[in-house]
Amino acid sequence: MRLGCIDGEAVLIRDDRYAGLAEPSAQRFATPGLVYGDWPGFLAWAAREPDLPWHRLDPKRLQAPVPVPGQVFGVGLNFHDHLAENGRAGTRPLPLTFTKFPSCITGPYDDVEIPLGGVDYEVELVLVIGRHADRVPADRAWDHIAGLTVGQDLSARGVQQGGQLSLAKSFRGFAPIGPWVTTPDELPDRDALDLRCWVNGELLQDGTTKDMVHNVPELIAFLSTVTPLRPGDLVFTGTPAGVGFFRTPQKFLAPADVVRSEIPGLGVIENRCIAPAAPGPYDQALGALAPRPPQPA
Amino acid sequence: MRLGCIDGEAVLIRDDRYAGLAEPSAQRFATPGLVYGDWPGFLAWAAREPDLPWHRLDPKRLQAPVPVPGQVFGVGLNFHDHLAENGRAGTRPLPLTFTKFPSCITGPYDDVEIPLGGVDYEVELVLVIGRHADRVPADRAWDHIAGLTVGQDLSARGVQQGGQLSLAKSFRGFAPIGPWVTTPDELPDRDALDLRCWVNGELLQDGTTKDMVHNVPELIAFLSTVTPLRPGDLVFTGTPAGVGFFRTPQKFLAPADVVRSEIPGLGVIENRCIAPAAPGPYDQALGALAPRPPQPA
Repeated sequence: MRLGCIDGEAVLIRDDRYAGLAEPSAQRFATPGLVYGDWPGFLAWAAREPDLPWHRLDPKRLQAPVPVPGQVFGVGLNFHDHLAENGRAGTRPLPLTFTKFPSCITGPYDDVEIPLGGVDYEVELVLVIGRHADRVPADRAWDHIAGLTVGQDLSARGVQQGGQLSLAKSFRGFAPIGPWVTTPDELPDRDALDLRCWVNGELLQDGTTKDMVHNVPELIAFLSTVTPLRPGDLVFTGTPAGVGFFRTPQKFLAPADVVRSEIPGLGVIENRCIAPAAPGPYDQALGALAPRPPQPA
Repeated sequence: MRLGCIDGEAVLIRDDRYAGLAEPSAQRFATPGLVYGDWPGFLAWAAREPDLPWHRLDPKRLQAPVPVPGQVFGVGLNFHDHLAENGRAGTRPLPLTFTKFPSCITGPYDDVEIPLGGVDYEVELVLVIGRHADRVPADRAWDHIAGLTVGQDLSARGVQQGGQLSLAKSFRGFAPIGPWVTTPDELPDRDALDLRCWVNGELLQDGTTKDMVHNVPELIAFLSTVTPLRPGDLVFTGTPAGVGFFRTPQKFLAPADVVRSEIPGLGVIENRCIAPAAPGPYDQALGALAPRPPQPA
């Protein structure tokens, strides 16, 4: 099953058609918040194969499939190949955890403002929580995941180097997700997903979730040890090698660049970089935070 | 005006009485989410002095006045006296920003689990956003703040030292707030508030928001430059000197300790430390993160 969002309404998606859930027979699941807020109830309802009117899908109308997540967890340095390019090969005892502040979530085909230099791309698998998760062991973790989607963990490297990991990941629009949420039963192997990212048509990241340092069940087990995960929360699970910061020369995003992110089985999102719409009072101070070149770890 | 939460219902508070807003005449403001989601509408409604039944208040029934904030921003190293005890006296160009993941919010008199060593207290002023704030200049910032409350920014110092600032601040229950939200018009000077914290009756922090490095309007201006603040969001604004990490000997919280936090004009919260209710799969790995002694900066 694939679930998206159009004009704030939750929609089911099949091939090139969609059915909106604001229909009278489906109204208790009219929005993504209502769907993930009662995921077991939604699954039971959907299993009865409700009769809904289907319409032709214009993909450009798709918004972020979880437009207002309650919490957004991010995990850094979670792929072996990315650790290696970082000069930190090896394992890490605990997942490096940050947030992307939820108001930076944006849609799968939305433009993204690039308000400062040193902005990098990171294609990621994003988990959508469907059942409250409080101290969940790894072998039960998948039971708490409603579905999966594609995300970009855009990152301002100079801000990150200044010790501001969550802020660096949270400029407005720095979290495009979509194009829809796919339930794991649609996938041949939910634990082996390829991730690819192109900038202006050039393939720059090409990895697999089999290379994760802490896999999906371990991330759920770890985070839910610290604080509960709730229905509608998101987890960005880390990026594979190939980011711009570690290239020679370094490669950062600028207005007019197009970032295309794909996870086969989950879909493709594509975001165009644009100049900021309006200046803010701290733009100059933030813009001065240019990234330093990587240092040997 | 003072606004609290009892059994999930938004309540008005006057002296030792409260009026619930799930009454038929007030139902569009039945929950804190509805109140802050339409703060201008709520102010207009409240100005008409609605006739509501008033009841005797049992303070122990008060829950977190904003139980499910959309985003929780935290700011570190934001008081000059705290910077000084940290060996980093001087100014900082940008506020050090992190999150407390929203599921760690708890009530003003709730017990708090202490799941590992090195947990520290930090009394803080907490802002409640009432109007969408997107690139707001400092001189308009107060217009976007619905009210103020008392918070504890409990912090696991060993996890923090491991580069996990947001995680260190987000163990379940690490964000007690309350006892209610006070509108700024109730205060003689909203820019000069005293903050005090006692542990087991001993006064350990005694500061004033006049000592802030980045004051309240500057914090709103800064954060809203990065990403929009939304109605019902919280901002923890930093703690004054006196935290346990910088004492000789260091002082950390343990089960049976009682943490009392006061901002005169806003009220008092008091939280008892307890042992964790249940073990989690990563407790042992997290518990091994003992804090190192402070180093000269």
